[in-house]
Amino acid sequence: MIVVMQQGAAFEEVAAVIRRVEAVGCQVYTSKDRGRTIVGVIGRNVDSLHEVVAELPGVEDVLDIGPAYRLASREYRRASSVVDVRGVAVGGERPVLIAGPCAVESHEQLLASAHAVKAAGADLLRGGAFKPRTSPYSFRGLGAEGLRILHDVGRRTGLPVVSEILSPTDIDLFLEHVDVLQIGARNMQNYNLLDEVGKAARPVLLKRGMMSTIEELLLSAEYILARGNERVILCERGIRTFETSTRHTPDIAAIPVVKQLSHLPIVFDPSHAAGARRYVPPFARAGIAAGADGILVEVHANPDEALCDGRQALAPADYVRLVGEMRAIAAAIGRPFEAAAAANAR
Amino acid sequence: MIVVMQQGAAFEEVAAVIRRVEAVGCQVYTSKDRGRTIVGVIGRNVDSLHEVVAELPGVEDVLDIGPAYRLASREYRRASSVVDVRGVAVGGERPVLIAGPCAVESHEQLLASAHAVKAAGADLLRGGAFKPRTSPYSFRGLGAEGLRILHDVGRRTGLPVVSEILSPTDIDLFLEHVDVLQIGARNMQNYNLLDEVGKAARPVLLKRGMMSTIEELLLSAEYILARGNERVILCERGIRTFETSTRHTPDIAAIPVVKQLSHLPIVFDPSHAAGARRYVPPFARAGIAAGADGILVEVHANPDEALCDGRQALAPADYVRLVGEMRAIAAAIGRPFEAAAAANAR
Amino acid sequence: MIVVMQQGAAFEEVAAVIRRVEAVGCQVYTSKDRGRTIVGVIGRNVDSLHEVVAELPGVEDVLDIGPAYRLASREYRRASSVVDVRGVAVGGERPVLIAGPCAVESHEQLLASAHAVKAAGADLLRGGAFKPRTSPYSFRGLGAEGLRILHDVGRRTGLPVVSEILSPTDIDLFLEHVDVLQIGARNMQNYNLLDEVGKAARPVLLKRGMMSTIEELLLSAEYILARGNERVILCERGIRTFETSTRHTPDIAAIPVVKQLSHLPIVFDPSHAAGARRYVPPFARAGIAAGADGILVEVHANPDEALCDGRQALAPADYVRLVGEMRAIAAAIGRPFEAAAAANAR
Amino acid sequence: MIVVMQQGAAFEEVAAVIRRVEAVGCQVYTSKDRGRTIVGVIGRNVDSLHEVVAELPGVEDVLDIGPAYRLASREYRRASSVVDVRGVAVGGERPVLIAGPCAVESHEQLLASAHAVKAAGADLLRGGAFKPRTSPYSFRGLGAEGLRILHDVGRRTGLPVVSEILSPTDIDLFLEHVDVLQIGARNMQNYNLLDEVGKAARPVLLKRGMMSTIEELLLSAEYILARGNERVILCERGIRTFETSTRHTPDIAAIPVVKQLSHLPIVFDPSHAAGARRYVPPFARAGIAAGADGILVEVHANPDEALCDGRQALAPADYVRLVGEMRAIAAAIGRPFEAAAAANAR
Repeated sequence: MIVVMQQGAAFEEVAAVIRRVEAVGCQVYTSKDRGRTIVGVIGRNVDSLHEVVAELPGVEDVLDIGPAYRLASREYRRASSVVDVRGVAVGGERPVLIAGPCAVESHEQLLASAHAVKAAGADLLRGGAFKPRTSPYSFRGLGAEGLRILHDVGRRTGLPVVSEILSPTDIDLFLEHVDVLQIGARNMQNYNLLDEVGKAARPVLLKRGMMSTIEELLLSAEYILARGNERVILCERGIRTFETSTRHTPDIAAIPVVKQLSHLPIVFDPSHAAGARRYVPPFARAGIAAGADGILVEVHANPDEALCDGRQALAPADYVRLVGEMRAIAAAIGRPFEAAAAANAR
Repeated sequence: MIVVMQQGAAFEEVAAVIRRVEAVGCQVYTSKDRGRTIVGVIGRNVDSLHEVVAELPGVEDVLDIGPAYRLASREYRRASSVVDVRGVAVGGERPVLIAGPCAVESHEQLLASAHAVKAAGADLLRGGAFKPRTSPYSFRGLGAEGLRILHDVGRRTGLPVVSEILSPTDIDLFLEHVDVLQIGARNMQNYNLLDEVGKAARPVLLKRGMMSTIEELLLSAEYILARGNERVILCERGIRTFETSTRHTPDIAAIPVVKQLSHLPIVFDPSHAAGARRYVPPFARAGIAAGADGILVEVHANPDEALCDGRQALAPADYVRLVGEMRAIAAAIGRPFEAAAAANAR
Repeated sequence: MIVVMQQGAAFEEVAAVIRRVEAVGCQVYTSKDRGRTIVGVIGRNVDSLHEVVAELPGVEDVLDIGPAYRLASREYRRASSVVDVRGVAVGGERPVLIAGPCAVESHEQLLASAHAVKAAGADLLRGGAFKPRTSPYSFRGLGAEGLRILHDVGRRTGLPVVSEILSPTDIDLFLEHVDVLQIGARNMQNYNLLDEVGKAARPVLLKRGMMSTIEELLLSAEYILARGNERVILCERGIRTFETSTRHTPDIAAIPVVKQLSHLPIVFDPSHAAGARRYVPPFARAGIAAGADGILVEVHANPDEALCDGRQALAPADYVRLVGEMRAIAAAIGRPFEAAAAANAR
Repeated sequence: MIVVMQQGAAFEEVAAVIRRVEAVGCQVYTSKDRGRTIVGVIGRNVDSLHEVVAELPGVEDVLDIGPAYRLASREYRRASSVVDVRGVAVGGERPVLIAGPCAVESHEQLLASAHAVKAAGADLLRGGAFKPRTSPYSFRGLGAEGLRILHDVGRRTGLPVVSEILSPTDIDLFLEHVDVLQIGARNMQNYNLLDEVGKAARPVLLKRGMMSTIEELLLSAEYILARGNERVILCERGIRTFETSTRHTPDIAAIPVVKQLSHLPIVFDPSHAAGARRYVPPFARAGIAAGADGILVEVHANPDEALCDGRQALAPADYVRLVGEMRAIAAAIGRPFEAAAAANAR
């Protein structure tokens, strides 16, 4: 922590800062910059001092050095982490493909969608059973029955399954049925839920909140890592801006920024940012080109009949075409899908 | 719902829209605007059609009419709602004052703060026992012990108490100890939690998410109202923007906008938006002037020693001065605090 | 400037930073913080080094200390500046009232509006002759003829006049007719225009861009001050956020923040942020309560007939009521309008 | 325009709307939606009525149909426009490459950079002579001398040149020396400047303001088109959001959205959004993958010595590598660079 004193701060004011800091066991060095005194502070309890010191008389600014997350940082682990999901490596050599409907609606619907996305080359199947909905009057999912369907369809098709968990009380139910616990954007800072999945021995897909910074995303990952669960997959899904022509603004920049700051894998969800089907393919292609470790797309066997977000879901034929485009781009940037064929052959 | 067809949409395209809409029991009227066909749609299931219809060939746009919330709307209840909190009327003739430390740290600290804010004229006491913290390494509150302290201090001083609940599983503990259940900004869209407090017979203080629109705030209130709990108090606490000189941007506009759209009372929290003590008084004054039904301020008997957010907490003497300013402004706009004296005399 | 080296940066990397910095005549000091080397840099050309140094090997971060603006800073001038506009003191003891129609439409319309706002207590008259319009098909103002009308009506009513200048080539025309040169939000970073008004001996009203930071506003003011024109009045008029229920979000926080960072006066325009008449009074009241040095409101003798922004203009009777409320709030916070009566009596 | 009356609006209120609308020559139709009266309005002056009608008693909402821009819309011209820049087709079969330093610093520097980017495959050379700088103390460019250097280097290397124009008064100077007139982000709504380049017989590169919506970008293009200049190239360069890890957020979505709404070509500038060199390649790749008609990159022969934005400029070797990646992605999505070789052979 660096404390910048005001131009002309009194000696007593500097001394008060030093006393306050030493009182909690931190050490101090001082220097001068253009007439200002700069106080450097070192020690275990530095973070707790920031606010207190900032309000002391004569203090102009307090600068923190280094990120507030540790286990999630690239400094902590230089090599990129690879998260294993029942044999599918997320963050490995090639991008993975996650696809499926917004919501599990019925066994028939899900099975049809699952066969379609598997045939197109998907590695993982997604499907919501507990849906967070902005309006209390919208369809909120089939609940436990939806999870059972998802589990069954996953086993039949050989696709590991991903589904969003909304409440810590549902953890056992999810552990029984799903392969990846998804934390949705609205729950990125639901710390009880983060603690709970942090204690589970199951990979977690953590979505960035629609108005959260990348640093906050990494701090939320830190909650999970700090509980002992190292299998965290991050997901960018669009942020809220003043632009209204798309539902959210896909923050493609988050992909290389996360790779710079953290060792954790990051996948990209083009569907929620787009809000409309026609924009999903260009967003997805951009995600692959920017270096995403995977692309999560909503695909529905019959989008026009979907009970949830059908407007943004791709039909199977559109998804096949998109996978072809993503495959070509991935090859162009040196992360070919070829390994995918092998994985699907299992 | 109004469906605007593209210029030159084919007759078959219009017919397909009509068939789709009538299939779910909605009724239809058509008209023309500058060469375009306009299809009006009426019926119970209109909302579910929006996305499907928007993707039909020849459709240019789909316009919804009327808000997605109902029980929270001013149309549903013309008169402003007044929420009774053990004798304190929130949303009534005068603005109410809510104050106290960010976190309950000890019995002594809280009692000192409570006496100070009561002497200054506060109506309700706030204090966090379960703290949501961005970093897993920050102080997370005293938990159940904190609630017991809060309850005891509230009873000793005669101040009803407000505290944030983080998890549905804590509901019984909170019902035993607190008078107002606070839903924090990060949990505004934690729907399980909204459902739970919606079933409780206790007033709820619902904070706007720092990334949420006013419409989404009202939709979250709708969750609580739809479960049968009518005692909802809304709270504006600042939104995230590109500006970095304050922690968040206090959206003063939310106060008159909520009053226009909804019958629910709205209070204003200047402390979290400010992030620095010096900005709390001007923000609070602006909140009163804009018509807030109450002002929620962080006050700590000894801010420099606070374990949490001390940088933004007011010292008791500063709070006394601020209450004086707010009293004068409230009188100036015709909502004098005088009734407050009577209430405090009880 | 403080250069933070990476943990474990090599000695050669630190040396390269020092060589680069000394090459342009800056001086250097070094210290250590939690194992990292910290390089402090002092000198005239520090700003030009930031980007270069940030890219050198082993550098983790580069921190600037002190604001990039100087003449506009509170450090440069401790006492608040008062800008004199033909006898009206902006930034002085009491808030000033600026009012008038969005656009000058005709001599009759403007004279009627001017009499109305003067009767209500306004100090200055506003009116646009050259209008920046988002669409090329909107009404763009009467141009030079509008300025002549404004000048004449100003002289007849004794109100100094404010009008927006769009192009450096119009400067002589404006100097002939207006008392305050307004720089609109869209032109806040039109540096040629800033240079031009900076050379003029006339007060400037500089509006914050709708997506500019407060620091950028002060940097734009610095352009004007650096050219020798010290009579700069800042204006907050709302920023662009994700919220859509008001046209922009009035950033009330900018008022105390500017007062903290700068000696320049700041006025507040509630009309453009509101976008709808009904929200103008609560916003204006909040602006006074937050400490604004003046309130700039659109008032039209007959808003429903206005050619421009009529939706947000107040009718004279509404303005009279609002002035009464603002007067009461100003008195409540110790900045009474009484001097206004004297000023109007002149 | 569609006027939605309030539930239970009185007949007189509906009649008043109709009278107001018919008074300016518009025609009217009425219908009913869930108990509300809907008034459709048709006619030339519809836009001018919006605000007036919205304020009439009993009116709930006024909906505009169709975009406010016309000449720029995809409806006006179904086929994508191709802008010819001295033989280089922007918006044609393949993406074009625009590169060069932020600022023209000297003949030697520019010539070295120009040779480097041409060798890498660039089609156009960029270089700023008049620089808009946030701080008045930053380097503001060589001015007219810079344009002469740019022109000479362009002719020597055979690369058409692009440079930013800041003031309408400089138009003749620019027409003498540059092949594409660039309007910078800060001037996107400098309407005098838009009018001026709209009258010129020269292609215009119009950058989206960092705070502007896509609709506003198209409206600014409309200004130029309405003056008779059809050769407009749009440019996305990042928008301002709450995220601070990159300078701006590259709005990749703008690329397919513009292609949906408009016939004009759109290029993408990854350098300004990134603000740091390391993020330029992934952003550029994403831009190609999303369908951009060109990529504009800052390249400097010796970035560490650059007087302006050196932190984000690529060195020649990095640019060569990036062009290779972009070529592979362009081929992967069916817009191969091959034609580029032919163009460069000229």
